[in-house]
Amino acid sequence: MGLSRRELMRSAGVLAAATGFGGLALSIGATAGAQTAEKQAVPDLPWPYKKIDPLVVAEAAYAGYYKGACCYGVFEGIVGQLKKEIGAPYTLFPSTLLVVGQGGVADTASLCGCLNGAASAIFLVTGAMESKKRELPYTIIQEVFNWYEQTELPDYRPKTPKFDIVKSVSRSTLCHVSVTKWCKVAGFKAFSKERSERCAWLTASVAKYTAELLNSHADGAFKMAHPLTAATKTCRTCHDKGSKREDTRAMQDCGGCHFTPKAKTAHPKL
Amino acid sequence: MGLSRRELMRSAGVLAAATGFGGLALSIGATAGAQTAEKQAVPDLPWPYKKIDPLVVAEAAYAGYYKGACCYGVFEGIVGQLKKEIGAPYTLFPSTLLVVGQGGVADTASLCGCLNGAASAIFLVTGAMESKKRELPYTIIQEVFNWYEQTELPDYRPKTPKFDIVKSVSRSTLCHVSVTKWCKVAGFKAFSKERSERCAWLTASVAKYTAELLNSHADGAFKMAHPLTAATKTCRTCHDKGSKREDTRAMQDCGGCHFTPKAKTAHPKL
Repeated sequence: MGLSRRELMRSAGVLAAATGFGGLALSIGATAGAQTAEKQAVPDLPWPYKKIDPLVVAEAAYAGYYKGACCYGVFEGIVGQLKKEIGAPYTLFPSTLLVVGQGGVADTASLCGCLNGAASAIFLVTGAMESKKRELPYTIIQEVFNWYEQTELPDYRPKTPKFDIVKSVSRSTLCHVSVTKWCKVAGFKAFSKERSERCAWLTASVAKYTAELLNSHADGAFKMAHPLTAATKTCRTCHDKGSKREDTRAMQDCGGCHFTPKAKTAHPKL
Repeated sequence: MGLSRRELMRSAGVLAAATGFGGLALSIGATAGAQTAEKQAVPDLPWPYKKIDPLVVAEAAYAGYYKGACCYGVFEGIVGQLKKEIGAPYTLFPSTLLVVGQGGVADTASLCGCLNGAASAIFLVTGAMESKKRELPYTIIQEVFNWYEQTELPDYRPKTPKFDIVKSVSRSTLCHVSVTKWCKVAGFKAFSKERSERCAWLTASVAKYTAELLNSHADGAFKMAHPLTAATKTCRTCHDKGSKREDTRAMQDCGGCHFTPKAKTAHPKL
């Protein structure tokens, strides 16, 4: 096949770069054969992180929305920068997989794709299998989710937008709730080009905020800025872990969906 | 570093296996250097599929739940079998990433992790970037979601369960709704060991059904068996795409959350 020793060393070097431990990968190649090296080729989580420019991330996420929708836009907005800055193992990740989060997963309008994409990006660079090591990544993700529920969004205006977009507050992490709340404020339909552009701005906004949190975490300075609301904490005293009823589990704004004016009468007086 | 030509060939062969085109990977190594080879090392979606045993998948998913929770359990229950059957590129995927779907993503109790994991597994083996090629994968995912909403679950009993588990119908794709509905039927608390075992059975059930659908798709025989309910279709005539109001978007059972007895009076007579 005409491969020189030097060229083969270069090919093997791809694996070395992927593990992040060149010597290890090469020694595996030398001692245990290809199968073991293959298992080692992609390191386990967390993957290495280098601070990235949130504004560059936001623009990349906006463009990503129009290529692969909301979830892909947020994820690739962040991971695309890490690919450029760090290379492997990011270059070995099939980011197209994140397209599936589109429109609340496969267009079912469940969990907002921006949030699903943010959660994956955060866990990729901070997560691990051990239970204890999941706690901090989950707190960072919960911060993004709570910020999304409580903030007037989108709060990032792309450099060359298709339309101007008004803001709304979702009070929910769900795609269809977030869309409906915005439609009411904006006066556009749920499948309009304007709504699509709103979700592109939202993709940029969520990616930017996520990058800011990851940078802050890299500096050892991450703190939760958006805890659950006081009203939700009241709900949890009767319904969440350790409570008398303990009949549900959630880290979300209960009032965003429950206790609409007509339903309020169904609940005992608080 | 004492690597023989033969050992280097073996290392380069890992890349060849990863692309699925041995000759191509080697010729890239020879002509364009490591950087191009690295980009080619993991193929884009869809990844190759080979029919897998749904019962083996179910048991693996049950065990996976107790290792990495619900989302990881379903995903790795399926992808773990494909790793064994096919090898690369599956062996290059960092499945630990799927842990993040735990408890409705990072324990926020939004989208059920079993469903998030199933969606990713389905898209990995059937999905693509092009919009047209997303339609069939999304239909398969919607089938799993609708089945989950409409069916008494869990419907798979692991070979060596910790407890026996009663069934419930969620009428929702959300973690906290699904958990609360089961708690009501079973009489156990939301953070009890029994509820955890119920989610392990559910992980096995969703993984098994997903594997059955993927096998059916591999045979060219996939058909949607659980369309949206007639009641939901009625909702959509006024609220979904192309309707007069068009003020939301969703492929879910509306009545699972909306129109509780007390709230029903707020809606115009249908």
